[in-house]
Amino acid sequence: MVREKIMDISLRRGFVWPSFEIYGGVRGFYDYGPLGALLKKNIEEVIRRHYIIEEGCFEVSSPTLTPEDPWVASGHVKSFSDVIVECEKCGEPYRADHLVAEHTGIQTDGMNISDLKEKIRDAGIVCPKCHGPLGDPYDYNLMFKTYIGPGKRKITAYLRPETAQTTYLLFKRLYAAGRERLPLGVLQIGHSFRNEISPRQGMLRLREFTQAEVQFFVDPNNKNSDRFDEVADLQIRVWSGEMQARSSEPKEMSLREAVESGITKTQFIAYSLGRAWSLFERMGIKGSRLQMRQHKDDERAFYSSDTWDIEYISQDFGRIELVGVSDRTDYDLRSHMELSKVDMRVNKEGRKFIPHVVEVAYGIDRPFYCTLESSYVEQTGEKSRTYFKFPRDVAPYRAAVFPLVNKDGIYEKARTVYETLKNLGFYVQWDSSGSIGRRYARADEVGIPFCVTIDYDTLRDSTVTVRDRDTMKQERVHIKQLASRLS
Amino acid sequence: MVREKIMDISLRRGFVWPSFEIYGGVRGFYDYGPLGALLKKNIEEVIRRHYIIEEGCFEVSSPTLTPEDPWVASGHVKSFSDVIVECEKCGEPYRADHLVAEHTGIQTDGMNISDLKEKIRDAGIVCPKCHGPLGDPYDYNLMFKTYIGPGKRKITAYLRPETAQTTYLLFKRLYAAGRERLPLGVLQIGHSFRNEISPRQGMLRLREFTQAEVQFFVDPNNKNSDRFDEVADLQIRVWSGEMQARSSEPKEMSLREAVESGITKTQFIAYSLGRAWSLFERMGIKGSRLQMRQHKDDERAFYSSDTWDIEYISQDFGRIELVGVSDRTDYDLRSHMELSKVDMRVNKEGRKFIPHVVEVAYGIDRPFYCTLESSYVEQTGEKSRTYFKFPRDVAPYRAAVFPLVNKDGIYEKARTVYETLKNLGFYVQWDSSGSIGRRYARADEVGIPFCVTIDYDTLRDSTVTVRDRDTMKQERVHIKQLASRLS
Repeated sequence: MVREKIMDISLRRGFVWPSFEIYGGVRGFYDYGPLGALLKKNIEEVIRRHYIIEEGCFEVSSPTLTPEDPWVASGHVKSFSDVIVECEKCGEPYRADHLVAEHTGIQTDGMNISDLKEKIRDAGIVCPKCHGPLGDPYDYNLMFKTYIGPGKRKITAYLRPETAQTTYLLFKRLYAAGRERLPLGVLQIGHSFRNEISPRQGMLRLREFTQAEVQFFVDPNNKNSDRFDEVADLQIRVWSGEMQARSSEPKEMSLREAVESGITKTQFIAYSLGRAWSLFERMGIKGSRLQMRQHKDDERAFYSSDTWDIEYISQDFGRIELVGVSDRTDYDLRSHMELSKVDMRVNKEGRKFIPHVVEVAYGIDRPFYCTLESSYVEQTGEKSRTYFKFPRDVAPYRAAVFPLVNKDGIYEKARTVYETLKNLGFYVQWDSSGSIGRRYARADEVGIPFCVTIDYDTLRDSTVTVRDRDTMKQERVHIKQLASRLS
Repeated sequence: MVREKIMDISLRRGFVWPSFEIYGGVRGFYDYGPLGALLKKNIEEVIRRHYIIEEGCFEVSSPTLTPEDPWVASGHVKSFSDVIVECEKCGEPYRADHLVAEHTGIQTDGMNISDLKEKIRDAGIVCPKCHGPLGDPYDYNLMFKTYIGPGKRKITAYLRPETAQTTYLLFKRLYAAGRERLPLGVLQIGHSFRNEISPRQGMLRLREFTQAEVQFFVDPNNKNSDRFDEVADLQIRVWSGEMQARSSEPKEMSLREAVESGITKTQFIAYSLGRAWSLFERMGIKGSRLQMRQHKDDERAFYSSDTWDIEYISQDFGRIELVGVSDRTDYDLRSHMELSKVDMRVNKEGRKFIPHVVEVAYGIDRPFYCTLESSYVEQTGEKSRTYFKFPRDVAPYRAAVFPLVNKDGIYEKARTVYETLKNLGFYVQWDSSGSIGRRYARADEVGIPFCVTIDYDTLRDSTVTVRDRDTMKQERVHIKQLASRLS
């Protein structure tokens, strides 16, 4: 399994580590180690440049701890829950729908508590761990709850389960700061939290995770995109709700075709999916492993007029949802308007209306994992090796610098080259131990695009050997040309 | 007050906004708006480059929600608390020490619950708001508490009050990934949380805030710095514990003098303070408003051998602590070793020992505010205006692009320039409405370093007018030279 090989490198070299290890660990939490923190930062920066610079979006950053009201308005307090069942003997908790599905093969989507209770009883399901009897299923809210402030004045608070609502709260301020233009796109990158009952998929199902969610506030009368032509010819595997009813396979088509045949309900949705697709390729995720899947009618949130996911087909995990694109209509702003009594309507061309929201909701941790999986290469044969072929902008380090030997002035010369590259703003790694071959292997293993070796010739003619990670080709480059060669 | 002028610009243009405004707000929480999010990101990036690239530190990113054990080991569960007293009539909570100090003028540092109870009784203090009687003071833990997981299996958890402990938990992994070198520096940038009783200082005392804390793991036998010479000649206002006993004024001296006279206990502490000083200047904070203040013996944590703050002297708020530099000895690693039974010792040169930690703990929100205050300029006289003189790397936008008029092909030409700058990776703003003078004023107000105007001459000779924010000088620059002019 690729997954195990990646996790082995990850643990040793420092991409991700299971959290709280010395205290026995807690499921659903990961730390980003030194390489992971840089890779994650670069992935976030690719998203930021894509949306802030290229799409002209705003960025905001809100607290993750919030009072209760926003989640009452959004519906999370009432219905952001799973049905849980616990073993009466050993206490192990299970998601009731998963347990029933695993034991009976029945499709459990949309079942309520009494349906699930009945199935558990009828199928005689007991605790898979200790065979003890199961208690009654009950609704379990997935938000972490706490209190802000002390004593009698304390107020109920939640850790946000998504960034989206925290952005909606700012709409009036954003609309004014943006000088009242629509569409208005707003990116928020930050942590969110879901108290999963029993997360078992490593870093694919976390209790604390990073999101990058973009909210486009649009005129309900205009859900087209000025820039649709830029993505219209992208050939993408499309799996609409209707296709899913008929076939287990998506169909490849252009986004233009998807729009013209009414498969995506608006051009704006198709444009957003196309842009997300390109973004994943920029991160180093293989486009050939991506597909866009529409939520079926019984799966889509009641307020949404159209919802799609882009899924990555993982070698080990199967379908992984990387981004959700959803037309949320005026549901969120209307709900906050009703509860807060603050008018969320705008005045445009003589019309007064609540903008609609098209949300493009990325996780960061899952694309992070898929970048690792997509970039991982095992080269066999004479020159067998493993490496990550991260795009240059995404790789944790741009280059590694090696002195051929640690004497004769070569060490000092190499330090100078290293310091120069750092002063130019490159993230570079220093490695002066072991054979050059071993150092190449160490650099490959963490996906460093270039290795720069300083040797005796360098002292004579100021050239260095630059070795390319992907081709393994080596060339002599003058130190003065080094920065542009790495860019 | 400068503070009010800054807050006015901030609210209108989008630096920071009080959180949850539409629901009446909650004290101690702020949102970063579109300009604030960019400025904050740039401040974080300055810190990252400083420590990751220049100092060769690692970066890590840990969960903010953690189980209880780390905080038992660190002492936070037992003693990270303030003494609180509540009004029995209206319920208003107060920090008992603040209340006593305000009413009696007595110095309350280090007073325990019974001392404070006595003072409240003796001074006859009642609720300042409603004059109701006050209840008994009690200890109030400042960590937000919640539970991970459901039902019988749920475990007690806290939102971290600092990043430091989450970094210490990773020490063994970090030491191995760093190939067992000391000193080993590790940066963590992320949110932390403190459930302040009654925060009243705007964004200077937040319940959720961003920290950038660096932990240097060092050999206890070597607390020197190889690079001390780089900072030794810095002239800095120094206010040692001993000086504070004698004088209300710090004394200017070089860091070399501070080390040689034993004012800082180690060279490493002095080096770290010097580097932090330079870093603040790079953010745009005036060095002339900074001083380094040592914690007095009765103020320093019991395990620390030496602790210093760098303080900013604010026009409106007085002394603001921006960073704490502390030699924490082996306290943290030893505590985690004792509770977790995991060996935290390293083997170096035949010695087995627990590394010591020197911590450099920055907040981000306070330097953010101080950057605003330090950069704010009110120019009077004929050319009266207000602007932020942010350093180029820190300013939210590098440039604004203006078409002189929106006709005759000038609008289109300006769009091309705008798109070109964006493609080069610059954060640039577009403004095509109102007179050029008004557009300059709007750009100045948010500290944009350059304004680029496209006019009729541009169509003829491909030059544009570049106007410098600080000097207000205008020069003609060829479009091909524009990128290097802005860099």
